[in-house]
Amino acid sequence: MKYKLYYWAEIQGRGEFIRLALEDAGAKYVDVLRTSARYSMPKGVFALPYLVAGKRVISQTTNILLYRGTRLGLAPKDEPGSLWVHQLQLTIADWLVEAHDVHHPIGSGLYYEEQVPESRRRAADFLAVRLPRYLDYFEGVLKGQSGGYLLGRTATYADLSLFQMVAGLRYAFPVAFGRLEGRFPLISRLYDRVIARPRVAAYLTSSRRIPFNRQDVFRHYPELDSAAKKSKKT
Amino acid sequence: MKYKLYYWAEIQGRGEFIRLALEDAGAKYVDVLRTSARYSMPKGVFALPYLVAGKRVISQTTNILLYRGTRLGLAPKDEPGSLWVHQLQLTIADWLVEAHDVHHPIGSGLYYEEQVPESRRRAADFLAVRLPRYLDYFEGVLKGQSGGYLLGRTATYADLSLFQMVAGLRYAFPVAFGRLEGRFPLISRLYDRVIARPRVAAYLTSSRRIPFNRQDVFRHYPELDSAAKKSKKT
Repeated sequence: MKYKLYYWAEIQGRGEFIRLALEDAGAKYVDVLRTSARYSMPKGVFALPYLVAGKRVISQTTNILLYRGTRLGLAPKDEPGSLWVHQLQLTIADWLVEAHDVHHPIGSGLYYEEQVPESRRRAADFLAVRLPRYLDYFEGVLKGQSGGYLLGRTATYADLSLFQMVAGLRYAFPVAFGRLEGRFPLISRLYDRVIARPRVAAYLTSSRRIPFNRQDVFRHYPELDSAAKKSKKT
Repeated sequence: MKYKLYYWAEIQGRGEFIRLALEDAGAKYVDVLRTSARYSMPKGVFALPYLVAGKRVISQTTNILLYRGTRLGLAPKDEPGSLWVHQLQLTIADWLVEAHDVHHPIGSGLYYEEQVPESRRRAADFLAVRLPRYLDYFEGVLKGQSGGYLLGRTATYADLSLFQMVAGLRYAFPVAFGRLEGRFPLISRLYDRVIARPRVAAYLTSSRRIPFNRQDVFRHYPELDSAAKKSKKT
């Protein structure tokens, strides 16, 4: 099966969770919008990304991973295992929205420059409250396992997504996340484990990997990276 | 099977999507925290709600509905149908987060009173841009169907959740949503259809239904309801 992925050509975004899964699985796919700007939103799709698999069109990132995860060898076959990975992925999806809303607390259709003071406040809350909460949670899940991945010895699409979160956070918040990360050694180790996977490593150094940039979900703005300290008294 | 639902006793929140499904299906369940304040977060659960079904503990609202939807008679049995309802539910879940963030654009741990100006701006964007976009989408899905529900003649948990969105929006934004709703007759008709379902009707008039209130996801603040008009020029 050759998949067609439809997602923005300029950003990693939510679509990156799917790209990483397809790449790690060695699946055949076309990242359609990287070579052609034309598409029409299929019926029933609310927003990008969507995946075309034969005659089927699936959207919502977590749903795509649920649908293909087992087939790609990145999720258990049994129902409890499959739901458990999906549950982890849903939590990562919530986390990604919050990481995005740090620089878009007022509206996703507005520019960052139109919401800078609000972003500073939201960044302070994200870095002080929400980010440690998510990190605590995933560190705790990893603590219950041996083998270094969320489910133990075998990587799932949730591990690839957690890797992506760490990569994004390191880029967006080098200072604030740098200060935090040492408290979550199992997450850092998972990052190292994922980046050493041959197909992931090949992907990340290829032109298929879109570099981090300021149109993306993870954005580096020094004023937000340092918001934690400055806004403590707000 | 008698389910145990763990969710905040004071609010409808995300848990209401599950309560509505359990009620409509006539399932036996205990809404545990309504009678007992004590619980400890089970391993692997990031946040409420979670559902206990026999020995299994499932969390993330959409995951719970995916897991139980078919068994409750509220989702198709086939994989494409089940994923399609799940996809609709994931979009409703995103929508609910945005409805919440209208009054909490800076941080969910802060009071509304600490983020009023930001909330006004976010409300303006939500009412002008995001809300119509979601309504357009679901009106479009309904347009493709005969029978009045999202999948046609048979209600799914996504229909119950869409009903809940309309109920919440009517409460939170009587003016702004009141102005919009006429453009989405199929959604209004779905609301009427769901509220006429005998078990839903019985539930809504029972003490098991928690009234809307200002601790909840949907909140009525007149200044946000009128934000659309006032902030157009911001």
